[in-house]
Amino acid sequence: MAAATPLLTNELDIVIPTIRNLDFLEMWRPFFQPYHLIIVQDGDPTKTIRVPDGFDYELYNRNDINRILGPKASCISFKDSACRCFGYMVSKKKYIFTIDDDCFVAKDPSGKDINALEQHIKNILSPSTPFFFNTLYDPYREGADFVRGYPFSLREGAPTAVSHGLWLNIPDYDAPTQLVKPRERNTRYVDAVMTIPKGTLFPMCGMNLTFDRDLIGPAMYFGLMGDGQPIGRYDDMWAGWCVKVICDHLGLGVKTGLPYIWHSKASNPFVNLKKEYKGIFWQEEIIPFFQAATLPKDCTTVQQCYIELSKQVKEKLGKVDEYFVKLSDAMVTWIEAWDELNPPTKSSANSSA
Amino acid sequence: MAAATPLLTNELDIVIPTIRNLDFLEMWRPFFQPYHLIIVQDGDPTKTIRVPDGFDYELYNRNDINRILGPKASCISFKDSACRCFGYMVSKKKYIFTIDDDCFVAKDPSGKDINALEQHIKNILSPSTPFFFNTLYDPYREGADFVRGYPFSLREGAPTAVSHGLWLNIPDYDAPTQLVKPRERNTRYVDAVMTIPKGTLFPMCGMNLTFDRDLIGPAMYFGLMGDGQPIGRYDDMWAGWCVKVICDHLGLGVKTGLPYIWHSKASNPFVNLKKEYKGIFWQEEIIPFFQAATLPKDCTTVQQCYIELSKQVKEKLGKVDEYFVKLSDAMVTWIEAWDELNPPTKSSANSSA
Repeated sequence: MAAATPLLTNELDIVIPTIRNLDFLEMWRPFFQPYHLIIVQDGDPTKTIRVPDGFDYELYNRNDINRILGPKASCISFKDSACRCFGYMVSKKKYIFTIDDDCFVAKDPSGKDINALEQHIKNILSPSTPFFFNTLYDPYREGADFVRGYPFSLREGAPTAVSHGLWLNIPDYDAPTQLVKPRERNTRYVDAVMTIPKGTLFPMCGMNLTFDRDLIGPAMYFGLMGDGQPIGRYDDMWAGWCVKVICDHLGLGVKTGLPYIWHSKASNPFVNLKKEYKGIFWQEEIIPFFQAATLPKDCTTVQQCYIELSKQVKEKLGKVDEYFVKLSDAMVTWIEAWDELNPPTKSSANSSA
Repeated sequence: MAAATPLLTNELDIVIPTIRNLDFLEMWRPFFQPYHLIIVQDGDPTKTIRVPDGFDYELYNRNDINRILGPKASCISFKDSACRCFGYMVSKKKYIFTIDDDCFVAKDPSGKDINALEQHIKNILSPSTPFFFNTLYDPYREGADFVRGYPFSLREGAPTAVSHGLWLNIPDYDAPTQLVKPRERNTRYVDAVMTIPKGTLFPMCGMNLTFDRDLIGPAMYFGLMGDGQPIGRYDDMWAGWCVKVICDHLGLGVKTGLPYIWHSKASNPFVNLKKEYKGIFWQEEIIPFFQAATLPKDCTTVQQCYIELSKQVKEKLGKVDEYFVKLSDAMVTWIEAWDELNPPTKSSANSSA
């Protein structure tokens, strides 16, 4: 009954930020080998990263990033997995799947290996439902539908821009929660995919994430983190806030839920606390800022939305800390670099006119 | 580790609308027998409804409703399960669990009988998270918490006013979907409870529902349906829209997800289509109305909010159909009847001052 899911092998790149040999790919081989990988090597560029045989990949280290972007390389973080967004920029494909190198194949309750990428593709190729809540979760999944009371005019749904997957074993907790609950493991397999409603922000984790570059790519900037910056571990959060505000403005959907990956190892909570410290305070002001942010109607492309958002960041969050002025400038640089590497095609130029 | 869930046997009534003998209670005996039942007999009041031995109950038929409410009985629907809301009104307890008489005990994936009421009590006694989305679902469940990026200032949560449970086997579909998918069964057990975000409406089903009367009771009016009315099967939807707008205004939470009940039998889709027909058109205007509805700050009690909403219904939806003028008046009558049966106590009068 179910149609085979298109594999999109020629339309999807897998982006992996790393500082180590990519042995974790062995476990993913049956699922990832048909795809092209973009590896973003963080840290020391003289180090050689070993990639298991048989994978088709390109690898960029810091020297490559500096060479390709020139002075605009300043917008790409160093010594932080935020550097992964460089991979989004150099990709020429429509879809990106990004995954951390400490994430392994999880098993579903029947004991079967979960092909996370296949589920992401299902999520992103089926519509979202941001305008009204469906109590039986994703109505486009097999065996599900819209429930009684769901307006018929909304059943066509909205294009899905983002598919946010979850994690079994080590949950994505902040440092304080890690410290307080050192033994907590996520063992609950929730068999659901759902749309995050319009107007609702969410904490987007970059560990297991798919998105449509054409629809939302230029907003997937992971900010300034790590080396030389006052903050870390907020790269994906920053992207998630910006992405959600822009998706809401453009009428695009964001899904969360399946697929699960197996997150193998908790990062050091003491190191994390140091990285997150300022973010714990700042997010109390950042989130109300994004909750209240509105974009003018004449912002019809992701780039226009993002530039507008960068102005609002400077104006409103610049008062919170000088860092946000720098971040706002980096947001503009990011868009300039994106457009340089991804010159608008005739058709996309027309569609955004 | 987990504390036993308080049973609330003295603080919760089970409300059941019915037209037949309540043999379905046999299956629920282990879970329901400690509680008091309020049975609202719909249809012919001369008919005797048999209740299995050993249950503690009070039963109201149409004659009772007319006697107790006098002319205000006009706000209680006849020949429609919307009549159940009379039970909410006459209850003296803090919590209500309402269930349809074609709902049976479902089994969890391990094959264990699900104590639906116990799960509802867990849901309603733990806070909700309407102001920000938690990707690992209800952070107050055992084995779960708030994920990285969730603002710490919001982790205390909001009081939970409503717990909306789901259905295995026959899903709660509208007539067109029933007609198109006559064989669809819900077999997906989603092990999740979640808060419906602030600002998001949802289709509330009255089949398996718990709420806190003190927090939201006067808004749980199931409208004018059935006999003499142009519409049916929108009773719970109407209540859900009103409840959600008022919960959002008052900072209260609405949860959905677990527990599941086993919904045994699909109602006749042809009969349903006749009942729903106008609603299918009307909901296209009703939902945008509720999505845009705002309540003034000086509405601080549920009653005040509900009366204000009734005015907006008359003004805005009265144009859609004359029915909404009548419904608006019935909303006012409902509140008058509620206050008559539930005179404000000194403490609640003070708190609403």
